[in-house]
Amino acid sequence: MSQKAVTVKDVKIKDSFWSPIQDLVMDFMLPYQADILEDKADIEVKSHAVQNFRIAAGEAEGEFHGMVFQDSDVAKWLEAVAYALTVKSNPDLEKRADEIIALIGRAQEEDGYLNTFFTVKQPEHKWLNLQECHELYCSGHMIEAAVAYYEATGKDELLKIMRRNADLICSRFGPPETGKLRGIPGHQEIELALMRLYYITGEKSYLETAQYFLDERGREPNFFAEEAAKLDWHHFGMKPENREYAQNHLPAKEQTEAVGHSVRAVYMYAAMAALAAETKDEEWLKACRTLWGNIVNKRMYITGGIGSTVAGEAFSIDYDLPNDTVYAETCASVAMVFFARYMLEIEPKGEYADIMEKMLYNGALSGMQQDGRRFFYVNPLEVVPGVSGKLFGHKHVLPKRPEWYGCACCPPNLARLITSLGQYAWAQSDDTVYCHLYVGGLAELNLADINVETNYPWDGKVKIAFTQKNNPSYTFAIRIPGWCKDWTLSLNGQPVKAEVKDGYAYITREWETGDIVELNLPMEPKRMYANTAVRADIGTVALQRGPIVYCLEEVDNGPNLAALHLPRDAKLLPKKTNLKGLGDVVLIEAEGLRIESSSDLYSDTPPQSKPAILRAVPYYSWGNRESGGMRVWIHE
Amino acid sequence: MSQKAVTVKDVKIKDSFWSPIQDLVMDFMLPYQADILEDKADIEVKSHAVQNFRIAAGEAEGEFHGMVFQDSDVAKWLEAVAYALTVKSNPDLEKRADEIIALIGRAQEEDGYLNTFFTVKQPEHKWLNLQECHELYCSGHMIEAAVAYYEATGKDELLKIMRRNADLICSRFGPPETGKLRGIPGHQEIELALMRLYYITGEKSYLETAQYFLDERGREPNFFAEEAAKLDWHHFGMKPENREYAQNHLPAKEQTEAVGHSVRAVYMYAAMAALAAETKDEEWLKACRTLWGNIVNKRMYITGGIGSTVAGEAFSIDYDLPNDTVYAETCASVAMVFFARYMLEIEPKGEYADIMEKMLYNGALSGMQQDGRRFFYVNPLEVVPGVSGKLFGHKHVLPKRPEWYGCACCPPNLARLITSLGQYAWAQSDDTVYCHLYVGGLAELNLADINVETNYPWDGKVKIAFTQKNNPSYTFAIRIPGWCKDWTLSLNGQPVKAEVKDGYAYITREWETGDIVELNLPMEPKRMYANTAVRADIGTVALQRGPIVYCLEEVDNGPNLAALHLPRDAKLLPKKTNLKGLGDVVLIEAEGLRIESSSDLYSDTPPQSKPAILRAVPYYSWGNRESGGMRVWIHE
Repeated sequence: MSQKAVTVKDVKIKDSFWSPIQDLVMDFMLPYQADILEDKADIEVKSHAVQNFRIAAGEAEGEFHGMVFQDSDVAKWLEAVAYALTVKSNPDLEKRADEIIALIGRAQEEDGYLNTFFTVKQPEHKWLNLQECHELYCSGHMIEAAVAYYEATGKDELLKIMRRNADLICSRFGPPETGKLRGIPGHQEIELALMRLYYITGEKSYLETAQYFLDERGREPNFFAEEAAKLDWHHFGMKPENREYAQNHLPAKEQTEAVGHSVRAVYMYAAMAALAAETKDEEWLKACRTLWGNIVNKRMYITGGIGSTVAGEAFSIDYDLPNDTVYAETCASVAMVFFARYMLEIEPKGEYADIMEKMLYNGALSGMQQDGRRFFYVNPLEVVPGVSGKLFGHKHVLPKRPEWYGCACCPPNLARLITSLGQYAWAQSDDTVYCHLYVGGLAELNLADINVETNYPWDGKVKIAFTQKNNPSYTFAIRIPGWCKDWTLSLNGQPVKAEVKDGYAYITREWETGDIVELNLPMEPKRMYANTAVRADIGTVALQRGPIVYCLEEVDNGPNLAALHLPRDAKLLPKKTNLKGLGDVVLIEAEGLRIESSSDLYSDTPPQSKPAILRAVPYYSWGNRESGGMRVWIHE
Repeated sequence: MSQKAVTVKDVKIKDSFWSPIQDLVMDFMLPYQADILEDKADIEVKSHAVQNFRIAAGEAEGEFHGMVFQDSDVAKWLEAVAYALTVKSNPDLEKRADEIIALIGRAQEEDGYLNTFFTVKQPEHKWLNLQECHELYCSGHMIEAAVAYYEATGKDELLKIMRRNADLICSRFGPPETGKLRGIPGHQEIELALMRLYYITGEKSYLETAQYFLDERGREPNFFAEEAAKLDWHHFGMKPENREYAQNHLPAKEQTEAVGHSVRAVYMYAAMAALAAETKDEEWLKACRTLWGNIVNKRMYITGGIGSTVAGEAFSIDYDLPNDTVYAETCASVAMVFFARYMLEIEPKGEYADIMEKMLYNGALSGMQQDGRRFFYVNPLEVVPGVSGKLFGHKHVLPKRPEWYGCACCPPNLARLITSLGQYAWAQSDDTVYCHLYVGGLAELNLADINVETNYPWDGKVKIAFTQKNNPSYTFAIRIPGWCKDWTLSLNGQPVKAEVKDGYAYITREWETGDIVELNLPMEPKRMYANTAVRADIGTVALQRGPIVYCLEEVDNGPNLAALHLPRDAKLLPKKTNLKGLGDVVLIEAEGLRIESSSDLYSDTPPQSKPAILRAVPYYSWGNRESGGMRVWIHE
């Protein structure tokens, strides 16, 4: 029985953890990002993204400024605003969005073409350099924004604009036997966008073109090489023969390992999963499962970070997960949430939602400063003062979140993830409601209205109240997290027998309004160990409580965090507290050791250990107080 | 009382460890290197170094080929041949050297100028780009060769050639008030060469110019920037503002930290030490001691490797000693032997000779394949299959010694070190003989002939027999290694009372021919620990026996060496054996553990350990058998 994630409009989040973050994004971050996009914010980097549209629309003089994909900053902001307007109304924000949408319409060319870089700066180069020039990528993001804005507000102006654009793309690119041109995007994104456009319009050509781009990728002859051979110019100087970088080394269906630029990769995998969910094509399903498995079983940090090397912002090899030279781009973790969502549509397995949860509470959320002003692109698991951000191989690993970047992909990506959280929490089919995430608030679903109360992730009690609609007979399926062994489930205060399968507990019955299901997840802090194939983590332990991965910061533990040891028998004490800049959190404290060596550089005197209280804070919260060292994996 | 290292001619080495290596260098490596320099060897890289001289001499047609410092390969080879001819006679090798020396003379220009790159290729650019173009560097190496060849053979043809060249340099560069031009070498080397030329000629201008180059370095205004501003061409594209790279950031006398390109740095420090030893200038002495201390106490691997980052082949910051991304160039460890030798001339302290020994038996010797055909430039402390030599940040870390390089600095540098070993083992003053290293063979010194018998470093017994000359009353000083606590010393079989000071035991008496001093150094294998400030080594232990540092290789221990643990109470068993490709060595075996994790990437199940015999081999010998992982620091 096919199940689909709900839309963001179906869920009203009222959650002690996420609501303050959503409020921050809505009340501060999105207006602030709009100021940046309109060059009204007092920051060093000039965005010029909105001004580019004005120039393209013929309403301002000047030159295009920014990255070739500068338009996508506006698109992702619009998408986030769309979701935000479902969280709570914000007429000012909606007005700003509407004005920008109208501007986008005026910047669109007659035939539906929309890209300010080419309209303003290089009109003679349109569509000639797909490898480097991100036209399809920008269209993709704007299509996603259009779909979201329509779903959220019912307004279809942007949707019409982007259908014209999508129609242009679909009429241009396709199998040569249909009279169309061969082509694949340099940075995947259009595929997922066309899938989403297909969902709400039912227009088959969007599905077909999405499938065409996925099918064509990695085929011979190398499209990017053929394209480059025809050009006497380049944009970035990318090498078409570096095929793995853009997942162009094998037909996508035949790919088995996550390689190359991690955001490109996972945007593609998410689209593949959406296509597989839609078509039930066994080959696509198999490729999705294999690539998913390769990432989560061999190429992912415990925080959910993926893409372990700065060279190409890319996946490395199996188990190569250095903590201090890591890339782990925020956008890649965001993309994994998309991938997981579509894998869940293929098959409701807890392992997908577990990863979605891991990203949300750790490696994606860590990208954002708690004041909404600063963002990490790179999410390290170890920061060393004097080394991180400074030395060769570590220069990209910043010890402090920087302000808005020239390449501003991550901040609006986080904004759109956080404001659309509701759609990841729930799914439904004709006869089953799925609860993937434990997020407080009301889900207005086809089968019932379901209200969740919880202090998750600090507390493991999740109380779920049902209000019935027409048909009282259906199945309620709730994820049992992979990290939890001793969970209990009750119905109206009594233990309930539920069928447990693939990480979900299923309760099928005649539901009555007022029924209460309660899931209890013991939240004892746990020691986590990496596979010994992960060379960087041998001899170390990480701390986790519920879905939250912890880290040590210098501000709590003093300098040289590498010299701290956590003996295997030390008791881990959770400690609820309110930390300046961190809000309400549960810390973990333990009686550890600080190793002190002889003062010699090398000595045959073994280092001695002195007692030291270790205090671990949630990973996502690091870097919000005094800057200094940080470390996830602690020596045992 | 001033003491001087002996010359290489004074010592006839007959040592179970070093003689086979010297024989290999003499019988195979030097003829083989000559074949390479003359393009007669069957290898991929073309040297062309001798041919460049032929073209410069007008005796061949063609273009210059190779690095701008290609001449220095010939110079270092000649220097090594010179030393080799003191080890044993080799008329073929001497003939080849004499012919090349004659050719060098014919390639020299009228005014003494000697550099085939500029003579052949860019005569209009002579002396204009000292930062990049290595003219003074090449002269320096050829001067060292000239001094060595004269000392070894008594033949002065090359010495005359290089005195003309040195005179040209000394007449050109110097303080402006003397009417000379300001200048400093881009790659230090000329300073030490001029010091050596001064020692054997007594010509003050050589000393003065060496001192000028050292004094002028790091002064304002930035010489390299001034020079570059006058040029409309560059050679490598070096940045003059990157002053630390070439130790040009502060007056050399005021430098306190070892920074920048490690070979440049230590060649300079060695020259500074030679100057300090000669002049007794307190400021130079202080700078030398400070820089020495910074290296050996904060910036040196346990193997003696120095220069921990590939970026600039350079020193990094204090305690930043990553094992797997290390540079640790062979030439830099060779240079530390030179530095140590001159520090010993300043003050006979065991710490200097200890480091000399550490380099010789570990981080320098590791540069050479045991067949003399292949060489490491980079000497890692951890090699990981699939990572080393392949991934970003690890590409320079080769898991196997390569053949001769285009930039062939290290192979002849090793050759000249190994053939000149004798001069590092002994020193003498008017009334004292110093034994710095325990190398078997006969030292013919002013005060006595002293014969050493030993199986060092495999055995700690060093038997020293004296044959008297005129004055029987003098002091014999023998180093007590810093790594040894329970040493004993006897004279003619009886315990002897010796004054021990700064790492040397002093015996003053009337010596008789036939006297035997025996030093016994217990050779129990030891666990070594790094300072906890060395982040990379926390929680690990290294093995050492005598001066030999050990490592684990995959060929002996199976894959994933990082998963092996050596418990602190495991007994370390030395095991004398003969290993294919390694010859006679003492291994260390111990009952260790192999850690096995759950097959999950992350799990709350602690890894389990299974017994595993660990077998460690001498570090210098690694990479001589099957290729695979290697690791010096073992998890405890």
